[in-house]
Amino acid sequence: MRAIVLLSGGMDSLVTTAIAYNLGYELAALHINYGQRTEKRELKSFQNICRHYNIERKLEIGFEHLSIIGGSSLTDEEIPVTTAKFDFTDIPTSYVAFRNANILSAAVSWAETIRANKIFIGAVEEDSSGYPDCRKEFYSAFNEVIKIGTKPETSIEIHTPLISMQKCEIVIKGMDLEAPFEHSWSCYKNDEVACGICDSCARRLRAFEQAGIRDPIKYKVRPSYLNF
Amino acid sequence: MRAIVLLSGGMDSLVTTAIAYNLGYELAALHINYGQRTEKRELKSFQNICRHYNIERKLEIGFEHLSIIGGSSLTDEEIPVTTAKFDFTDIPTSYVAFRNANILSAAVSWAETIRANKIFIGAVEEDSSGYPDCRKEFYSAFNEVIKIGTKPETSIEIHTPLISMQKCEIVIKGMDLEAPFEHSWSCYKNDEVACGICDSCARRLRAFEQAGIRDPIKYKVRPSYLNF
Repeated sequence: MRAIVLLSGGMDSLVTTAIAYNLGYELAALHINYGQRTEKRELKSFQNICRHYNIERKLEIGFEHLSIIGGSSLTDEEIPVTTAKFDFTDIPTSYVAFRNANILSAAVSWAETIRANKIFIGAVEEDSSGYPDCRKEFYSAFNEVIKIGTKPETSIEIHTPLISMQKCEIVIKGMDLEAPFEHSWSCYKNDEVACGICDSCARRLRAFEQAGIRDPIKYKVRPSYLNF
Repeated sequence: MRAIVLLSGGMDSLVTTAIAYNLGYELAALHINYGQRTEKRELKSFQNICRHYNIERKLEIGFEHLSIIGGSSLTDEEIPVTTAKFDFTDIPTSYVAFRNANILSAAVSWAETIRANKIFIGAVEEDSSGYPDCRKEFYSAFNEVIKIGTKPETSIEIHTPLISMQKCEIVIKGMDLEAPFEHSWSCYKNDEVACGICDSCARRLRAFEQAGIRDPIKYKVRPSYLNF
């Protein structure tokens, strides 16, 4: 059975890859460049993780349109990156409108072409900072669209193995599966040494702290987020 | 009220634009280049139609990934373009897997960013050659995904005004609205003089014949398709 894994290079997509690999799927890895600030560093992580899992079928595609459309701090240099506040009532400035639908649509096109019937994505509902397209209902609805919008003889389904996990459970799951966290990259801001203070670094550091494990990547500052 | 219209430059998207224009929307036009053979010609049609309707907000985006993913005669030079046979039980070789979901996802990202709340697309169910992502249920399902996957304060909906029309009704509707058919382009094969024999030319020629109107664009050959 062939499966596509969406592999940004962050810790969630790394652990998702580890899960799919351990389920015995023949993996194909899809990496999307949508003009994010840290793209080069993410691509390096993508390649290292593919090497680790012997994934030969790789596809890197450019989603320049998402940076042209803009409206997000991940792609628009004029909008500052939100620093961590763990207040998930507002949608943070790193939100790219409907990003996951764009990514999943490309993944489904590729899946139909290479005859893969699972698509793994490391979406996490609880820790998704309120992104509307990270919720369980979004993936259920998208699976309906896939069923209706692909050839009758195909059977393609999105899997979100992390969707109900807490971030620290993801760390523990990854450690259990011996996922190479040292290859992953989460920082939204820097691309050599992780900043330690953007939303994404903060969530990651807190997760490792809660799991009682030291994150193997380097940080510029490594604040404690246990009290947040 | 602002609306996005998906404008490939073909007759269906032209008539859809005419309908949206006549409903009084402030239009923004989105053109996708997904590596199709006749891209340059389509882009010229897009620009001429935008000029005709005074559409100033235009976005042309490249979907190179769809040609990289391939698997379709529209994007892959090694797969021949199917000539017309009007046998819609098989999905023709011009099918790009899940193409419309890719296009709609980009349109929704743009709509959320520019605060448009309608997206017009010229999909036609009956005459869609069996493309699974041209059917009414596909758009209903996609509207669900939009509702769930965008910010709560947004309200974006896809409109498919042609979905239940026959091709000849679309010609008549376009004539009623004085749509400039001379600017549109449908041929999948050529980019100067339409071939007259590919699936898309054949469907267009037959529609004009059935409507009793002469198609104003030039054809290399202009067979009668009334008996098909």
